Amino acid sequence: MSLLVVGSVAFDTVETPKGKVEDALGGSALFFSASSSLFTDVRLVAVVGDDFPDEPVDFLKGRGVDVSGLHQVEGKTFRWEGRYGEDLNEAETLATHLNVFGDFKPVLSEEYRQSDYVFLANIDPDLQRDVLDQVENPKFVALDTMNFWIEGKLDSLKETLKRVDMLVINDGEARALGCDSNVVKAAHNILKMGPKYLVIKRGEYGALLFDGEEFSFAPAFPLEEVFDPTGAGDTFAGGMMGYIAKQDSISPQTLRQAMIVGCTMASFDVEDFSFNAMRSLDAEKIDARLNAFRKLIHYDDFKLSN
Amino acid sequence: MSLLVVGSVAFDTVETPKGKVEDALGGSALFFSASSSLFTDVRLVAVVGDDFPDEPVDFLKGRGVDVSGLHQVEGKTFRWEGRYGEDLNEAETLATHLNVFGDFKPVLSEEYRQSDYVFLANIDPDLQRDVLDQVENPKFVALDTMNFWIEGKLDSLKETLKRVDMLVINDGEARALGCDSNVVKAAHNILKMGPKYLVIKRGEYGALLFDGEEFSFAPAFPLEEVFDPTGAGDTFAGGMMGYIAKQDSISPQTLRQAMIVGCTMASFDVEDFSFNAMRSLDAEKIDARLNAFRKLIHYDDFKLSN
Repeated sequence: MSLLVVGSVAFDTVETPKGKVEDALGGSALFFSASSSLFTDVRLVAVVGDDFPDEPVDFLKGRGVDVSGLHQVEGKTFRWEGRYGEDLNEAETLATHLNVFGDFKPVLSEEYRQSDYVFLANIDPDLQRDVLDQVENPKFVALDTMNFWIEGKLDSLKETLKRVDMLVINDGEARALGCDSNVVKAAHNILKMGPKYLVIKRGEYGALLFDGEEFSFAPAFPLEEVFDPTGAGDTFAGGMMGYIAKQDSISPQTLRQAMIVGCTMASFDVEDFSFNAMRSLDAEKIDARLNAFRKLIHYDDFKLSN
Repeated sequence: MSLLVVGSVAFDTVETPKGKVEDALGGSALFFSASSSLFTDVRLVAVVGDDFPDEPVDFLKGRGVDVSGLHQVEGKTFRWEGRYGEDLNEAETLATHLNVFGDFKPVLSEEYRQSDYVFLANIDPDLQRDVLDQVENPKFVALDTMNFWIEGKLDSLKETLKRVDMLVINDGEARALGCDSNVVKAAHNILKMGPKYLVIKRGEYGALLFDGEEFSFAPAFPLEEVFDPTGAGDTFAGGMMGYIAKQDSISPQTLRQAMIVGCTMASFDVEDFSFNAMRSLDAEKIDARLNAFRKLIHYDDFKLSN
């Protein structure tokens, strides 16, 4: 099934305890596409400047991504600069330069408007709604956001939330948006805003899925070397939405499996800078780690009473 | 099978966002006994002052706990005072009064010396070794410790670690003891110090078990109301060791199941102050939550390649 993503394509300058990269390929839509294109047909909506190279675009094309919605315009590509300390769960943003992204007003082609699945990556909620307005009859829409919009543009974000099926955010964002330090209460509060499903990303502690009645949980894969967490959240979302679109199902089982796929993809992403780890992946390699995931949380059923 | 525990029995004054209790019943050995006695025969080694009431001792007796090793001496019982903020994963210690615990030199009875399973709760590693010396041929010994001993008495702690099968500590303690911010590397480093198994408690994020080759993971149960995390770690250890002793097995499956039992017991503990939640538990209530746990992490097996 077709999966449309709108978000940023960027140059990231990132420092982690393992090293530093300057102007590495990044951005939410790029990480998302590199991950989700391993599962389904992806349509990319984003903008880059005339300083953006062909290589990553060719790579995405090679993965079957429709890049006709990736506009190249005069000016500089969006740039983000961040640093991770020993706690790799949260980045400190050092600089953000919107550049050509500041005036981005995407107009979807007729084919893009017919997309089945939609992921609105972390951008201005007004822009998320603009794009969503243009998709004619999506089966399932998921949304990412961040504290910047929760604090600065809450009314617009709430308008967007009314129209999406699933929200994918991190732990701190869930507590902030749900106005409760208890993540269960925060989750209940968030579902009242519109989405049927909430996914809470918890970095090295895994992810939670809440459907209003039941939680399900996926751990993060324990890794000895975490090079760079940049893009892990978008890679997670790419795996999750890619699998959902591939299965063309939003059954409880598909959503649970999709969250496991998301955690698996994120575990690959953090093992290298940029989206480099995505480049050499295939179904066999993903299956091998899915098996390891299964062993991580499997135990034989048992009970205490007779 | 018999399970011996040595640790503190105390009065806790605790403040959480949900309220405050003064001189509530607490202490590592009390929480551990209240939890583990639901599974197996427990022998308690601890000391209290002449200010300690009969009621909790009678409660433990009613659960079949052998309290002949609980010494009552002249003076005041150990007291701990702590506070939790909105982040319930870590307490701020406001005061510690060792009182009669300061001169505690337990001498085990002949019956206690024959114990099969041993839990050395979080006390001075010298004292932990003193007690272990007196147990003649234990099948399986587990140990808890804390940053206070890792920072202040590392050599003694390392001597004790050489002689135990399993270490049960929290996330921050594992990183400190294992000298690495990466929990996988820290885990490898800790197993080089002696234990065959390491259990890392991660508060609301669950627990990890590492046997030197594989990790296994248990989530924490998502709860809408967390009243008081005090004793959750000891209640976890009580569930885990109680189940291991009951099964009289340290097979990989038993250890995994035991960790799930530990997380289940801890999820009950935090729902009330002191060890009150333990008082009304039985096998049926525990099984009901074990079922909910299973649903939390269950997904149907799947693969991507053909």
